[in-house]
Amino acid sequence: MDEKRSFHMSPDEFSRHGHAVIDWIADYMRRVEDLPVMSHLEPGAVRSLLPDSPPQHGEPFPDMLKDVNRVILPGITHWQSPSFFAYFPANTSGPSILGELLSAGLGVQGMLWATSPACTELETHVLDWLVGMLGLPTRFMSGASGGGVIQDSASSAALCALLAARERATGFRSNEQGCDGRLVAYASTQTHSSVEKAVRIAGIGRRNLRLIDVDGQFQMRPEALASQIARDRAGGLSPCFVVATVGTTASNGIDPLPTIGRICRDEDLWLHVDGAMAGTACLCPEFRWIHDGLEYADSYCFNPHKWMFTNFDCDCFWVADRTALITTLSILPEYLRNKATESGAVIDYRDWQVPLGRRFRALKLWFVIRHYGVEGLRFHIREHIAAAQEFAAWIEKSPDFELAVKPPLNLICFRHKRGDEMTRAIMNRVNDSGALCMSHAVLDGRFTLRLCVGQTLTTRLHVRRAWDAVVSAAREERTHT
Amino acid sequence: MDEKRSFHMSPDEFSRHGHAVIDWIADYMRRVEDLPVMSHLEPGAVRSLLPDSPPQHGEPFPDMLKDVNRVILPGITHWQSPSFFAYFPANTSGPSILGELLSAGLGVQGMLWATSPACTELETHVLDWLVGMLGLPTRFMSGASGGGVIQDSASSAALCALLAARERATGFRSNEQGCDGRLVAYASTQTHSSVEKAVRIAGIGRRNLRLIDVDGQFQMRPEALASQIARDRAGGLSPCFVVATVGTTASNGIDPLPTIGRICRDEDLWLHVDGAMAGTACLCPEFRWIHDGLEYADSYCFNPHKWMFTNFDCDCFWVADRTALITTLSILPEYLRNKATESGAVIDYRDWQVPLGRRFRALKLWFVIRHYGVEGLRFHIREHIAAAQEFAAWIEKSPDFELAVKPPLNLICFRHKRGDEMTRAIMNRVNDSGALCMSHAVLDGRFTLRLCVGQTLTTRLHVRRAWDAVVSAAREERTHT
Repeated sequence: MDEKRSFHMSPDEFSRHGHAVIDWIADYMRRVEDLPVMSHLEPGAVRSLLPDSPPQHGEPFPDMLKDVNRVILPGITHWQSPSFFAYFPANTSGPSILGELLSAGLGVQGMLWATSPACTELETHVLDWLVGMLGLPTRFMSGASGGGVIQDSASSAALCALLAARERATGFRSNEQGCDGRLVAYASTQTHSSVEKAVRIAGIGRRNLRLIDVDGQFQMRPEALASQIARDRAGGLSPCFVVATVGTTASNGIDPLPTIGRICRDEDLWLHVDGAMAGTACLCPEFRWIHDGLEYADSYCFNPHKWMFTNFDCDCFWVADRTALITTLSILPEYLRNKATESGAVIDYRDWQVPLGRRFRALKLWFVIRHYGVEGLRFHIREHIAAAQEFAAWIEKSPDFELAVKPPLNLICFRHKRGDEMTRAIMNRVNDSGALCMSHAVLDGRFTLRLCVGQTLTTRLHVRRAWDAVVSAAREERTHT
Repeated sequence: MDEKRSFHMSPDEFSRHGHAVIDWIADYMRRVEDLPVMSHLEPGAVRSLLPDSPPQHGEPFPDMLKDVNRVILPGITHWQSPSFFAYFPANTSGPSILGELLSAGLGVQGMLWATSPACTELETHVLDWLVGMLGLPTRFMSGASGGGVIQDSASSAALCALLAARERATGFRSNEQGCDGRLVAYASTQTHSSVEKAVRIAGIGRRNLRLIDVDGQFQMRPEALASQIARDRAGGLSPCFVVATVGTTASNGIDPLPTIGRICRDEDLWLHVDGAMAGTACLCPEFRWIHDGLEYADSYCFNPHKWMFTNFDCDCFWVADRTALITTLSILPEYLRNKATESGAVIDYRDWQVPLGRRFRALKLWFVIRHYGVEGLRFHIREHIAAAQEFAAWIEKSPDFELAVKPPLNLICFRHKRGDEMTRAIMNRVNDSGALCMSHAVLDGRFTLRLCVGQTLTTRLHVRRAWDAVVSAAREERTHT
């Protein structure tokens, strides 16, 4: 075709273009506060700017960066804006981005200990650190019977936990024999949708997932759990798995772990605890009450990629008995056999997850913890919670708004007293303005606004501005209707 | 605690440290060729260099980069070395690393179209491009009945395909009712272990996975598949899913898609085709024969993160009928409802995968395709295949070695004529030398060396050196035994 010996980007070119990308991101960090938070493009608008066919010949890198500005940026909802209050946060930070960059540059595969010992050992080590940092039960430590692993998301963690529970409950026969329609799983009506997805995936069947009723604070009613288990046993079914949530998605409800945990212990059920967002609060001793009862859990996860300044994906997942998990997920084909695995002295993380391959995700987590230090992380978590509580206090003092639920941490659920239509109109108005972004839930059948304070750059000032925006949206809405 | 208002890395600091990391990677690219390819640390060696507890207070970023050199690098097996020939490659490139960096910097969540339209639309668009670039069936296009999505790995793609097959075969009732032990899946004895893992996960049961016999080229025997299906139907079971592989892991065998495909069509079975590594070869028209018969496939995947210069994770997965996949994996909780989703005019990729959250992975793929252009990619793929074929020719001419199988593309399977012990000794000797890295498989019960040519920087020179190393290892081994 031509004389050129290589089309690769040379190290010198990489350095030059890399500096430009780094500076682009630094600049993005500076200006993200001023960008409209939500993208309001029409479907197809981004694709209409892209050529129908890929280029036959290579293009200069600066053209791509220009197209990021021209084509991509208008189609971005700025999750990193300090005025992003929707869903759960997906925050990040400088050290995390640089850890991800280094991981991409090293390009190692961590599927086995042997394929890069540092990738596995750093992960095990940092997850042991986090057991201490969050005050988790010590049996989750790798030096005890347990151990931690990084998953892509809490969805995958829940699936792995369910699979191990399924195997344990069937005497480790469900992998071999398949499901038989008798296993039953339990969650609350407020549990994240990923648990229903996991139940479907695992062949247990949605009809064998019991959604247990909640109390006025949207927290699981343990007595309802106990009586449902009894009914299922009486019906000849096999209860095997309970999910309790520490900080539900809709309202940040904290399921009562001590009572649920004792039920699971007595009934010999696998208890998985999902602390995807709220778990991070346990960096601060004063919030560790949310984990009371976690000593009963067989598995637990929280997501540094939500609220601990570590970019997606980074879900930390622990089990109390690693043997159950490994036995469930291990397959050793000949082409992956190696001395280290056969010695039994190492962890092969491909046996702790669904996929085989894995990135070196521990690097970014290590960088984040070292950059902030435990005290630095605590400082920002406390700031977020204080700002959210301040917002809640404004709601309580307001004649027009009310809290849907007393907020334990950094998620405020509230509504306008005039009802759903008004509340929804306020949300649309503030989101359309570009000044901030909130999302909604339905609690007790009523449309409810969710304001979650957890983005890296969010301060009390941004929360104050959000309150002002909500108040003026309500005023404008009254004027126009 | 103290007076400081923020512990975040400022944009200026990010810029400064980011330049250092970029230069570290550029330097790594320059010197990776000279580093010992495999890490030979003892278990625990990395952890022994790490402090037992995390720091209470933040540390300077340059200290972390120093520790990457001191603690991490000795524990790295250099997958990016041009002399890495083990497993399947996991290559990367400058534009890919910068795409990953930008994705981390933007920090968007692509779970819904509405959570960042550009993230979804670029992915759909680039996967449509790739249909043309690889000459895939046009029904995989998003404008037809199909569409593509980026998964983390071929393991997850196989799981999603199996789940959709399970649902379709049960009239979309297995999600609701669970599995009943009657569904059967088919693969060959050479199929990747992820398929067995998926069958276990999906509750179908390993005993209902039939491993079909292969011919002398380790390619599935379609007549054996057909008769097994007939036996299973006669036994009252429900065949539902067949995996065919284009380039098996052990030996790069190419299953005969046209015959397998016709069987699947006649029997109404979901055909999933796994082209994880070899699929990339189809960038070049002269290698597209490996995809003959792909028009029968219900789903297909290949991994740009193996051989297309895109860093892990990036598996491209297509389905011919997106409705079957979406119906299988979709759950819409209230807190994710939005106008765009309800309009039906957009793709929400969380319904195409197991997890809910997702990174902006299309950016790196877009950068790679634009940087190289189609012709640039073809150039390097042809170079790799030519170098591998040259190696195979040396084997054929050698009095001491023999090919285990005729190599269709870039994976050479060979052994020493003296037998397993000698072959294994050669592998250990070359791997211990640090000069290169190979892995093994067992084919026809015999220990076989695998040399896979696919790393970004690998040229004919490195393949020549690998051959020299193998020859001298054999010579030394003869001298010492």
